[in-house]
Amino acid sequence: MKSRSIGHRTWAIAEGYIPAESHGPGPEMTSHEAVCILNTNDRDAHVQVTVYYADREPVGPYELTIPARRVEHFRFNDFDRPEKIPRGTTYASLVESDVPVVVQHTRLDSRQAENALLSTIAFAAE
Amino acid sequence: MKSRSIGHRTWAIAEGYIPAESHGPGPEMTSHEAVCILNTNDRDAHVQVTVYYADREPVGPYELTIPARRVEHFRFNDFDRPEKIPRGTTYASLVESDVPVVVQHTRLDSRQAENALLSTIAFAAE
Amino acid sequence: MKSRSIGHRTWAIAEGYIPAESHGPGPEMTSHEAVCILNTNDRDAHVQVTVYYADREPVGPYELTIPARRVEHFRFNDFDRPEKIPRGTTYASLVESDVPVVVQHTRLDSRQAENALLSTIAFAAE
Amino acid sequence: MKSRSIGHRTWAIAEGYIPAESHGPGPEMTSHEAVCILNTNDRDAHVQVTVYYADREPVGPYELTIPARRVEHFRFNDFDRPEKIPRGTTYASLVESDVPVVVQHTRLDSRQAENALLSTIAFAAE
Repeated sequence: MKSRSIGHRTWAIAEGYIPAESHGPGPEMTSHEAVCILNTNDRDAHVQVTVYYADREPVGPYELTIPARRVEHFRFNDFDRPEKIPRGTTYASLVESDVPVVVQHTRLDSRQAENALLSTIAFAAE
Repeated sequence: MKSRSIGHRTWAIAEGYIPAESHGPGPEMTSHEAVCILNTNDRDAHVQVTVYYADREPVGPYELTIPARRVEHFRFNDFDRPEKIPRGTTYASLVESDVPVVVQHTRLDSRQAENALLSTIAFAAE
Repeated sequence: MKSRSIGHRTWAIAEGYIPAESHGPGPEMTSHEAVCILNTNDRDAHVQVTVYYADREPVGPYELTIPARRVEHFRFNDFDRPEKIPRGTTYASLVESDVPVVVQHTRLDSRQAENALLSTIAFAAE
Repeated sequence: MKSRSIGHRTWAIAEGYIPAESHGPGPEMTSHEAVCILNTNDRDAHVQVTVYYADREPVGPYELTIPARRVEHFRFNDFDRPEKIPRGTTYASLVESDVPVVVQHTRLDSRQAENALLSTIAFAAE
């Protein structure tokens, strides 16, 4: 398998929202936000995510590693260091990698585990 | 948190539509169109939105401010100066900022408040 | 309103499909494919659409005009010259304009008239 | 019909998932992932797809041919050489063509055959 390096180092996802647990009519309406990162390089990608909010300073970095030649989903619901992302809040995320990667934003339907309801390529900034 | 300036100054959203209140089978089918703007800069973004229609001259500018290092959702339903966007009408929007920003178009499900049904990165024009 | 010229002259939409009328469980499942074109210029945009198929030669051009400073939706279901697009068939479309425009592909829910279920920015080719 | 060559030679789709057959409440919830490839050239496009996983080495190439001036849908569910894509597994795909093509990722609703629920333009890498 020949070596490849596809994508960009900086990506932005302007739209994010994790519903409050008690807000919807039931668990079947709960969705999970995820960022999907493809690393085609022959070395690991070290990624830092910064989370922006409407009414307070950005929080981060959240540190992620995607091994060489792998793709991984990371659920924003599971982010916990430096802190959890509050439910019922609008947020955005900036994804910065030390090697080129491809980033997609997905919203997952909890009824179908990993089956995305919505998927948008992130904005490739540089 | 180091200073960043991510995105573009001009964005276009070709597809917009706010349903007429009485058109659908009920409020659970009513959606809300929003523009989501991420400002990663260390200064406020001053944004002007121009709304284009199928059968009359464009209207604007609608003036928005996104504070430094913040993300904000703006609902087209709430735009009222210089005038409201009529319901049941196709429109497009041009978003122009004095600093680089990232723009996403979302359609929100009123059953779930801020939970997007559809989300598309806007067209980055320059 | 100052003059603007936003977008590209060539766009491609790789994915298209108009369901066969009798295929779904009823009209509430029938969708309408549309191309949404924003012309921010101070002159009319003359657009030629070429439709590509899986098993025969491309058909076109379909001729569209978007007046200066207007946005318009065109339903593929209504295209009829040089010929109708057959139902139940996969197709793609190439959109070529004499001035820069912004093109979005939408799938409309017939229950809600113009309310898009799915919307994707087209591929800006040049 | 004049000759055209629209698109890019390398595309990436970061997000992919084929549900496990027995996972959902029934066939009406089963979706089919597809890659839609438009070849506007006057010669055939020879395409190699590499599939990336979360926990093992990438697999490929899967070989596809899109005839000159045609568009085709390929279902990931049907990929079988060098091997099937396992159900219930996250994957990504890298699409490499010998001529420029346009690539879109779609998720199809099995209730409506070819009627996409979700469609995202792939990431155009070069």
